[in-house]
This record gives sequence, C-alpha cells and structure tokens, in this order.
Amino acid sequence: MNPENSLETFMLACQSRVEAALDARLPSADKAPARLHEAMRYSTLGAGKRMRPLLVYATGHALGIAQTTLDGPACAIEFIHVYSLIHDDLPAMDNDDLRRGKPTCHKAYDDATAILAGDALQALAFHVLAHDPDIAVSAENRLAMLETLATASGSLGMVGGQAIDLDSVGKALTLPELEGMHIRKTGALIRASVCLAALTQPGLAKRDQERLDRYAKCIGLSFQIQDDILDEESDTATLGKTQGKDRDANKPTYPALLGMAGAKTKALDLHEEALDSLRGFGETADYLRAISHFIINRRH
Amino acid sequence: MNPENSLETFMLACQSRVEAALDARLPSADKAPARLHEAMRYSTLGAGKRMRPLLVYATGHALGIAQTTLDGPACAIEFIHVYSLIHDDLPAMDNDDLRRGKPTCHKAYDDATAILAGDALQALAFHVLAHDPDIAVSAENRLAMLETLATASGSLGMVGGQAIDLDSVGKALTLPELEGMHIRKTGALIRASVCLAALTQPGLAKRDQERLDRYAKCIGLSFQIQDDILDEESDTATLGKTQGKDRDANKPTYPALLGMAGAKTKALDLHEEALDSLRGFGETADYLRAISHFIINRRH
Repeated sequence: MNPENSLETFMLACQSRVEAALDARLPSADKAPARLHEAMRYSTLGAGKRMRPLLVYATGHALGIAQTTLDGPACAIEFIHVYSLIHDDLPAMDNDDLRRGKPTCHKAYDDATAILAGDALQALAFHVLAHDPDIAVSAENRLAMLETLATASGSLGMVGGQAIDLDSVGKALTLPELEGMHIRKTGALIRASVCLAALTQPGLAKRDQERLDRYAKCIGLSFQIQDDILDEESDTATLGKTQGKDRDANKPTYPALLGMAGAKTKALDLHEEALDSLRGFGETADYLRAISHFIINRRH
Repeated sequence: MNPENSLETFMLACQSRVEAALDARLPSADKAPARLHEAMRYSTLGAGKRMRPLLVYATGHALGIAQTTLDGPACAIEFIHVYSLIHDDLPAMDNDDLRRGKPTCHKAYDDATAILAGDALQALAFHVLAHDPDIAVSAENRLAMLETLATASGSLGMVGGQAIDLDSVGKALTLPELEGMHIRKTGALIRASVCLAALTQPGLAKRDQERLDRYAKCIGLSFQIQDDILDEESDTATLGKTQGKDRDANKPTYPALLGMAGAKTKALDLHEEALDSLRGFGETADYLRAISHFIINRRH
C-alpha cells in the first residue's frame, strides 16, 4: 500500500460512511421538537473534516475491527465535537459567525436553540455508546468506552481546555501552559477517538494500547500546532472559518511562542514520534501513519 | 410508619446524604481549571430541594436496595438537573438572576463559564454512572441506566421539553400540548429517577417496573402543576426564584388553562392515581406515597 495515495481514498470513504451513520443516528427533522432537531442536523451534517471519526476507523483498521462496530464510537465522538463547536461559537464564547463554511448554529437559528442543540448532541453521544446495537463489544468494554468519552469531554478534558483557553486570552502563557491547554481542549477527544476504537478489540495487549495512546497524544498536539499555523497563514475562504481570529483575540499560539519556523519544527518532531509509536504495528497501521503526515501538511 | 411525619426525616437524611455524595464526586475547586470547578460546585452544592435524588432513594427503599448503590444514580440525575438549570437561566434562555435563593451561575461567574459548567456537569453525570465503583449492579444494568439517562435528558426528553417551552412563549397551547411539553421538560428526569433506582434491583418484575413508572409519570405531572400554582400564588422570597416569572413571560401554565381550582383538582387526581399505581407494594413504598402527597402540598 502506498499510504499517501490511499489515505485520500480511505478518508473519503470514511467521510461518506460516517455521514450516513450520523444521519441515521440523528433524530429526524420532522420529529418534534422540529426546530431543535433541524439545528442538530444542520450543525452535524454536510461538512467537517471528520478527523475524529477517521481516527476511529483507521485505528479499527489497524486492529482488524469490522467497520459496523466502529460506526457508533465514530458518531459518538463526532457528536461531542460538534456540540463543542456550537457552544464555542456562541456570542458568550468565541462569538463566531462562520463554521465549516456556513453560518454558525446560533446565526442560522438563535442562541437558545444553539445552546439546546449542543446539550442534546452531548446526550446523544452517550446514548449512542450505551445503546447502539451494532457495537459488537462486551458490556464491560462499552462501559469503558462511556467512561473514556465522559472523561475526555468533561472538566478535566475538552470542556476544561476550553475554560483554560477562555481564561488565557491576552495572557502570556508559557509553553507548558499552552500545551496543557491544548492537551485538554483538542487532544483529549483525539486520544479518545483512538482509545474507543482500541476498546472494540477484546483483550488488546496493554503495550499496544499504550503505543496507540502515545501516537494519539502526538498527533493531537501536532494537529493543534498546525491549526495555529493555518490561522496565521491561510485565508478565510480556505479555512471555512474566520482567519486570524486567534491572533486578533490575542490568544496565545504556537507561532507566537516559538516563531513560525519553531512551530513547524515542533509539528515535524511530533510526527516522527507518532511514527515511532507505531513501530510495533504492521502494514494495517499505515493509515494511522499517513494521518499523522496529513495532519502536519493539511491546508485547512 | 406514619409516612407524613417520617417523610420529613427521610428527606433531610437524603438531602444530607446526597450533598456529601455530590461533593465527593465533583472535582475539587483547587484543581485546574479552578474557576470552572468552582462554578460547578457553586451551582450544585448547598441548596436545592433534591427532589430527584429523594425519588432515587425512596424507590430504592421500596425495593430494599442499599443506599451506597443509590448514591451514584442520585448524583447523576442531580448533575443533569443542575446543568439544565444553569443553561435555562442564561440570558439567551430564561434570563434569570436568582436560583435556589442565590445569584444564578452566569451572574456569579459569567455567561461563558456558566455554559461550560453546565456542559461539564452533563459529562460528569454520565461519568458517574459509567464509572462509580459503589453502584453494585451488573454491567448490563449500568448500560441500561446510561441509556435511560441519555434518553431522558436528550432531545426527546428534557432538552426537547425546554425547546418546546421556549417555542411556546406567547402561544395558546392546548392542554395536550402543554402536557406534552411538561412530560419532557420535567417529567422525563423524574421518571428517570425512579427508573434508575429500579434498575439497581436485578430482575425486577416487569409489572413492578411498569407500576413504578406509572407512579413516576403521575408525580412528574403533578410536580409541574404545583410549580405553576406556586408561580402564581407564592412570593419570590419563599420560592427562591423570581415569582410570577412564567405569567409575566406569557408562558402557558395550568392555572391559565384550567383556572386555579381546575389546576388544583388535576393535581389531586394525579396524586390518587400515583397511590393507585403503588397498590401492589407494601409499607416500604410509604415514602413514595408520602412524596406524592408532599408534591401537591409543597409551598416552594
């Protein structure tokens, strides 16, 4: 397999697969309350890189897991991610008008609907993991998935990272502080994507779990560094969200702390460490390797 | 047992028990992000009727379940309830300044922190059910609890009811429409309280599950009717929240639809039906009976 070439095919297949899986798990827009369900569907469907579902499927591929078992975890993680974007975009938070190339949820609907759509998507994420009959794992592993997702999305994970982020506007963070924020804000959910997929394999060796987790930590951070780089270098149309937003908001970023060249070197170092973490895995992990490469080379 | 007298003792014991259980399960305020954790603790601890935890303990008492097994479900339900109050009070929603006799979360902190504190409390609720080692039930029953809580709090449950509520301001709802809204907005979580406790008993007969569920449906509705009555009749100091708020916001209420006497009769009928549902249970269900009586007689 030439991973560079085939990753694009795999990504497109995963995007299309998870789109259908999300659609099937979202409440229908003709079911009451219709406006709430429309808002949930509006923000979830039709756009998005689906990086987290991709990681679920790619990790599952590395372990030889059936894709039907991976749909539920992929959707659960994406529902959490989408809810966090909806709430993050609210006027009380980042006050963003544009997301994934279209008006943000509160712009397309209203603030109250956006708050509730986010709340309902979070509940839906846990519902999918608790209920989805296609997830062919033991009840114990399902519980471990639920616990992992709850930890990753809560006050010590994603939401905690957002709180630190809000609190850090205009502050001069040190590199460890900046990293501590990102490890929670975006890193926790990326690690959970890999971890949930690993939990679909009964009795995966602890060493392999740890290797996958180290990989996930590396790409979680390189993903964020590349996000900061793109926020500086890309334009609004390519990005699908407002360019230069973080710099304008006086938020600490990697290029601000390390310089643009330093930030790019750090992303490359993390990519090398990600590859190193996967050395015990065979060809089936090539998608994971290619994803790490893709993350630091993406343009949006 | 004279249930009228002893309910007060039982309620106080449950309040004090759940307060300690909530405290133990909330992240410490000296753990980062401190402000977020403070806000979560501020809104959860120190006040609140704890009606939902009370129902968990009272249902568990009816079934002879150890209280240590009930602490987790009681906390999970209360965390969901508290998060919904925090989000409900936001300027974009009900815009309330006072809750449980003190400033609302966004008044004491800020809107962004209130949004995040609510989000984190929802995640914590699912974490407790998935993880809490004191919940002595099978993995399968734990999953059923998680599924029940996710359904009750999502777009077809509590959050859906809030969406319908927001959408109904200034509208002339019919009685079935009003009831459909309340069955979701407050009823779903009250039913979940009884259902989660029922799920702590392995192999509870389906007939008893249904009886308990019918009881929970009745008191969920009578609870809401009494809320509407108190919103008209009580004063702000007794209520601990702004009096006449619903009427002023031109929200549909039971007294508005049925008249004050009609609303009181309906609450009484529901109380009778609740008692009827429990006829197959013995003395251990006396707390449940007394709670139904208490709900329609409470002054705040």
